[in-house]
Amino acid sequence: MKKEFKLAVLPGDGIGPEIMAEAMKVLDAVEQKFQVRFERQFANVGGAAIDRDGKALPDATVEICQASDAILFGSVGGPKWDTLPAEERPERGALLPLRRIFGLFCNLRPAIVFPALTSASSLKEEVIAGGFDILVVRELTGGIYFAQPKGVEGEGGERRGFDTMAYTDAEVERITRVAFDAARKRGKKLVSIDKANVLSTSVLWREVVERVSADYPDVVLSHMYVDNAAMQLVKAPKQFDVLLCPNMFGDILSDEAAMLTGSLGMLPSASLAEGSFGMYEPAGGSAPDIAGKNIANPVAQILSAAMLLRYSCGLADAADAVEKAVENCLAAGLRTGDIYQDADGEQLVSTSAMGDAVVAELIKS
Amino acid sequence: MKKEFKLAVLPGDGIGPEIMAEAMKVLDAVEQKFQVRFERQFANVGGAAIDRDGKALPDATVEICQASDAILFGSVGGPKWDTLPAEERPERGALLPLRRIFGLFCNLRPAIVFPALTSASSLKEEVIAGGFDILVVRELTGGIYFAQPKGVEGEGGERRGFDTMAYTDAEVERITRVAFDAARKRGKKLVSIDKANVLSTSVLWREVVERVSADYPDVVLSHMYVDNAAMQLVKAPKQFDVLLCPNMFGDILSDEAAMLTGSLGMLPSASLAEGSFGMYEPAGGSAPDIAGKNIANPVAQILSAAMLLRYSCGLADAADAVEKAVENCLAAGLRTGDIYQDADGEQLVSTSAMGDAVVAELIKS
Ligand SMILES: [Mg+2]
Ligand SMILES: [Mg+2]
Repeated sequence: MKKEFKLAVLPGDGIGPEIMAEAMKVLDAVEQKFQVRFERQFANVGGAAIDRDGKALPDATVEICQASDAILFGSVGGPKWDTLPAEERPERGALLPLRRIFGLFCNLRPAIVFPALTSASSLKEEVIAGGFDILVVRELTGGIYFAQPKGVEGEGGERRGFDTMAYTDAEVERITRVAFDAARKRGKKLVSIDKANVLSTSVLWREVVERVSADYPDVVLSHMYVDNAAMQLVKAPKQFDVLLCPNMFGDILSDEAAMLTGSLGMLPSASLAEGSFGMYEPAGGSAPDIAGKNIANPVAQILSAAMLLRYSCGLADAADAVEKAVENCLAAGLRTGDIYQDADGEQLVSTSAMGDAVVAELIKS
Repeated sequence: MKKEFKLAVLPGDGIGPEIMAEAMKVLDAVEQKFQVRFERQFANVGGAAIDRDGKALPDATVEICQASDAILFGSVGGPKWDTLPAEERPERGALLPLRRIFGLFCNLRPAIVFPALTSASSLKEEVIAGGFDILVVRELTGGIYFAQPKGVEGEGGERRGFDTMAYTDAEVERITRVAFDAARKRGKKLVSIDKANVLSTSVLWREVVERVSADYPDVVLSHMYVDNAAMQLVKAPKQFDVLLCPNMFGDILSDEAAMLTGSLGMLPSASLAEGSFGMYEPAGGSAPDIAGKNIANPVAQILSAAMLLRYSCGLADAADAVEKAVENCLAAGLRTGDIYQDADGEQLVSTSAMGDAVVAELIKS
C-alpha cells in the first residue's frame, strides 16, 4: 500500500488559513499514528492570489495541483473582491477552472447531525434522535447547468429563454458507480433521485442506474422523485443513507439536507475526478467577518481532510479515526462559538483548541 | 356584484364524496350568510367515472365544467384502477386533460401551519411559533415538463437523454401578475425563485419579474436561488409570504413547504386559468383506506371551497369567513383522527362533525 502522498494545500481567504492550520495538525497526527507521509505544497488561491498574482487561480497553483494526489482547499472570497466582474472573483475564478482542469465530475456532500448536536437542527428532536448521516452524491459537470443549447432568442416582448437538460449513458454510469461504491462502504442503501414521470433525461438516468445496480447486489437500490425527496428529507431524514442525484437536483437537495443538520459550518465536501484525484473543502464560506480571531470552527476543514484520506489516499482507517476523534470532542462538550449553546456540559473553545483536542483524541485512540 | 355562480362539483373517489359533502354544507352556509347562490352540477370523475362511463374524464363531465364558473374537485384514484395504463388511470386520465382543456396555467399551493397545529410540524416549535402561511404560486403548463424537444437519441450504450427548459416573456408575465396580485392581497412580500446564475431561462424569468414589479410598488420583491430557497424554507419559513416559481422549482418547493406544515391533509390547492375560471382541490390524495368511515379530514376540501370563493367568485369576505371558521374550530380543539394527538383540550371528531362545526362557526361569525 502506498505510504507517501503529495498534497496541494490551498488555504485561501478569510478563515481559510486558520482552519487549514488545524487540518495540518491533524494530518501530522495521522502521519505519526498510521505510518504514512503527506508531502504538502502550499499554494495561493482566491483573493489572496488575486492580490499577489493578479488572478484567483495562478498558473503556479495549477502546476502544484497537477503534481499532487489531491487538493485540500480552504475557502475563498470576501468583500474586498466583490466589486470584480463575477468570473474574476475568487469563487468563480478559482473553483470553476479547478473543476474543469481536473475533471471533477462528482460532488460528495455529507449531511451529518452528530448525536451531540441534534439541538442545532431546526427539526424536532424526535425526528432526528441519535443524529443522521446522509451522503449526497451529485453529478457536477453535466445536466442542465452545462448542456447545450442554452440562451435567449427573439426580441422585445417576444423572447424565449431556453436551457437543455441532458445526460449520456457514460455520464450517468460513472457517477452511479461512485454512489454505489460509497453506499457499499456505508449503510448499503442507495436512493436515486429523478423525475422519470415527466423527464426523458430521467428515464435514461433510471435505466442506467438499474443496469449498474446488477454489479452491486449487496446495495439496496430505490428510486424517488425529486419533489418527494424534498418532502421525505424534512419528514424522516434518517431513512436515507446515500442519495444519487443529477446535477441540479443534487444542488437543491444537498443544500436542503445540509441545512437540516443546523450546522453548515461543520460539513465537508469532496469533488472527485475519475481515478483517485479529488479536491476537498468545507461546504461553508470564508466568513471574513470572523477571520483572524481564532474563533472559527475548524471541524469542516478537518472532516474535509478525512474525506481526502478516504477517497484519494485509500486510508479508510485513518479517515474513520479522524471522524471518530471529532465526534468524541463534540460528545465531550467542546464547542466553537458557532455551535455553542450555553448548555450544561458545553465548553466554549477556540479554533486552535478544537484542533488540539481532535489531535489528542486521535493520538490516544 | 355577481350573486349567482355555476359550480361543477366533481367528488371523485375514496374520501372524495364524504369530504365534498362537508364542503357543500359550508357553501350552503355561505349562500345564507352572504346572500349569494351557488348552482351546483355534480359530475363523475376518476375511478368512479371509469367504472360508469369507461373513462376518467367523460365528455358529459367536461361539458358541465365548461358551463360553469369553477370546478370544485374532490380526489381521484385507488388500488382498483392501479393496473390500468398510466395515462388511463384516474389521476392522469382526469387531471391532465382538465388542465389542458381549461388552460390552467397557474397552481396555487398554500402551506399553512395553523397556530393550533404547530406541534404537527417536524420543525421545532421555536422555528414556527405562531404558525406560518406561505403561498406557492407555481407555473403549471410551461417549463421543462412541457417544452420541446425532449427524448432519448442514439442506441446501445451511446444514448443521450434530453429535455428542454423554456419560458417566453408572455408565459412569465401572466404567472408573475397572478403572484403579485395575490401578494398585494396578503403580506405584500414576493420572493421569485430562479437559478439565474446558471440558467438562461432564469435570466429571462428574472428580467420579466422585475419589469412587472413596476406595476406593484406596494409589493416588496426579492429574488432567491432555488437551492437557497430549499434551505431557507427549513431554516426560517416565517420569512416567506408568496413564492413565485417556474414549474419544476414550484413542484419541488411546494411539496417541501407542504410537508413542513406536518398536516398535508389540511391543505387546499387551486389551478387557475386566465380570467376567473379555476379548479380547486385538496392537495392530498383520495385515501381509499379510510374512505366511507366518516373519519377523513374535510378541512382541505372546505379550504379549497374557500379558495374558489376568493379566486373564481371574487367573494373575499366569504373566503375569509370560511378560513376563520376553520381556524376557530382548530383553536377550539376539534380534531379528526389524522391530526388528533391526544393532547389536553383536543376532541376527536368525525368528518361530518368537523363540517358541522365549521358551519356553526361560520353562521355565528
Ligand atoms: Mg446548491
Ligand atoms: Mg410535486
